[in-house]
Amino acid sequence: MKIYQIALLPGDGIGRDVTDAAWAVLEKASNAAGFALSGTSYPWSCDYYLQHGSMMPADGIETLKTFEAILLGAVGWPAKVPDSVSLHGLLLPIRKAFVQYANIRPHRLLPGVQGPLKSDHFDILCIRENTEGEYSGAGGRVHQGTDNEVAVETTIFTRKGVERILRFGFEQARARRGKLASVTKSNAQKHSMVFWDEITRKLAGEFPDVEVTSYHIDAMAARMVMAPESLDVVVASNLFGDILTDLGAAIQGGLGFAASANVNPDRTAPSMFEPVHGSAPDIAHLGIANPIAAIWSGAMMFEHLGEIAAARTVMAAIETTTARGIGAIPGKDKTDTITKAVLSALD
Amino acid sequence: MKIYQIALLPGDGIGRDVTDAAWAVLEKASNAAGFALSGTSYPWSCDYYLQHGSMMPADGIETLKTFEAILLGAVGWPAKVPDSVSLHGLLLPIRKAFVQYANIRPHRLLPGVQGPLKSDHFDILCIRENTEGEYSGAGGRVHQGTDNEVAVETTIFTRKGVERILRFGFEQARARRGKLASVTKSNAQKHSMVFWDEITRKLAGEFPDVEVTSYHIDAMAARMVMAPESLDVVVASNLFGDILTDLGAAIQGGLGFAASANVNPDRTAPSMFEPVHGSAPDIAHLGIANPIAAIWSGAMMFEHLGEIAAARTVMAAIETTTARGIGAIPGKDKTDTITKAVLSALD
Ligand SMILES: CC(C)[C@H](C(=O)O)[C@@H](O)C(=O)O
Ligand SMILES: CC(C)[C@H](C(=O)O)[C@@H](O)C(=O)O
Repeated sequence: MKIYQIALLPGDGIGRDVTDAAWAVLEKASNAAGFALSGTSYPWSCDYYLQHGSMMPADGIETLKTFEAILLGAVGWPAKVPDSVSLHGLLLPIRKAFVQYANIRPHRLLPGVQGPLKSDHFDILCIRENTEGEYSGAGGRVHQGTDNEVAVETTIFTRKGVERILRFGFEQARARRGKLASVTKSNAQKHSMVFWDEITRKLAGEFPDVEVTSYHIDAMAARMVMAPESLDVVVASNLFGDILTDLGAAIQGGLGFAASANVNPDRTAPSMFEPVHGSAPDIAHLGIANPIAAIWSGAMMFEHLGEIAAARTVMAAIETTTARGIGAIPGKDKTDTITKAVLSALD
Repeated sequence: MKIYQIALLPGDGIGRDVTDAAWAVLEKASNAAGFALSGTSYPWSCDYYLQHGSMMPADGIETLKTFEAILLGAVGWPAKVPDSVSLHGLLLPIRKAFVQYANIRPHRLLPGVQGPLKSDHFDILCIRENTEGEYSGAGGRVHQGTDNEVAVETTIFTRKGVERILRFGFEQARARRGKLASVTKSNAQKHSMVFWDEITRKLAGEFPDVEVTSYHIDAMAARMVMAPESLDVVVASNLFGDILTDLGAAIQGGLGFAASANVNPDRTAPSMFEPVHGSAPDIAHLGIANPIAAIWSGAMMFEHLGEIAAARTVMAAIETTTARGIGAIPGKDKTDTITKAVLSALD
């Protein structure tokens, strides 16, 4: 029997609650499908930082490298550790070190879930660049603390980085409804975004079967609420993808439903699966976090591992659960109630 | 009788259609209120560029400087002139040269207008930084055309630039419901956005009567669709404000309703009033553009000129019109029908 080695990083706050829930579902589904999961949990988090002075040990990346996938809960607890320390000490370095350049975020309304839009047609796949761009971290300040102070933050796109994410986007579009929306702001950002648009046009030639359209980020944000049915796959930079996927999460009914995969498509290092939501310290450990996003992220992990049937089984169990009204209304059901409902829907 | 000198820049596409409409309404309202408008129209546009090789004459900025306000339609016609030329040759230089650092964009549902959200409570004021930040234009490329190519785009915030827009935001919040939302992404952009957050915290001390909250841009985009009633004044950088105001326009029923003012609050140069929508070449001169955003922008011009009563009259006429269902449904009524209805509502 195949046994997959999985690293668990529950992280902070509700990250722990939902990782427990997801793991229970994934274990049951894997048993039923005839494979096994071996999970090794690491306590890397803001609490860990307060004890050890770093979010993970110096060999943290080395340790994770030996796994076939990583399941992450959420990182951050701003009242304990500034986000600029916690996120840059754990989440963002993993994405970069393991070249998880494709952040895949499916957004659709699950059965039984009410979104904020009047329209109930919503089914898009966002592909977010995950390693460079606006979150490259380059920059600094001069004349600090004076009237004359200046802060700069530099967006860096490489041809390699842009080409690979766009290519991935074209491939995903080909596997879905054949429509790709590429999102930039080339009318105001003449260097970085014009570059992205050029590469989009170049790749379009290689994918004549994909209908590609370039949108400005402002127009795309508007389109997502006004004409979401016109969209299929949306590919965007690190920042633009970040914004659009929170908007997508909102439209699909809330962050409790938004799953994600940080994927290294070349499989040179493990990929990481995590709900889009944060650690929500205010509701940590109250047993009221919705585990559906985390469970869905687990289904994406199964898909990445090639366990397609098990991935489908988990998604079907989620859909049966929300269709019954359980976990469908933010704040209504306890974590435990939802998890048990998904577990029993697996039977 | 006071006569205001107004520069008219109809620009491209539907910019011309809606400027004509707005001007007719503004002239009638000014006559009724006991003041006059003297309009001087300039043909600066993409067509002008094709004839003269520049979007405006070399002394364009000098010419505009002598006016008390500028009413702009829309700029751009990508099939004729790339946006990177047209916008950087007319719209963006005016905003910067006249230090119109505050881009004010009111978003609310007009009576009779159906927005895309189930919730019909929507009334926010976005204040967008308009002169620096992500649209500073700094950057370039190396290794052009090779596999190794890199494009950089540098965001530049100055303390002066950030302080003045935040101060303006606090003042606007004080004049409304006393709530200010400041939007950054300081968990991923450690230099520019952490700087903005620091200045927000510093200014908060000067405005103890304003309740200020910092949000990340991704969370704010989600909040605008999930809990818009929780927001009052939203202040954001050039890029973030750009994105949020298109989203705001969508939520208020479409770009046909979104007005804006590019304001120099220190009044050292003229301010500019323009609908948020673009030139929409596909529907140019068909007589079907909605002039409401342009008329509303004109009302904002009246307010800026100190003609508060006339501004209120114009807004009331817009509201009477949409409440009657005219101009309320995107694409339904002709420009002319809507303009006539607003004109007759002025009586
Ligand atoms: C926590 C934050 C740095 C992160 C990001 O912006 O990448 C999060 O918002 C996300 O979308 O995964
Ligand atoms: C046309 C474009 C450069 C402009 C901007 O982003 O400033 C527009 O989108 C706006 O919002 O006024």
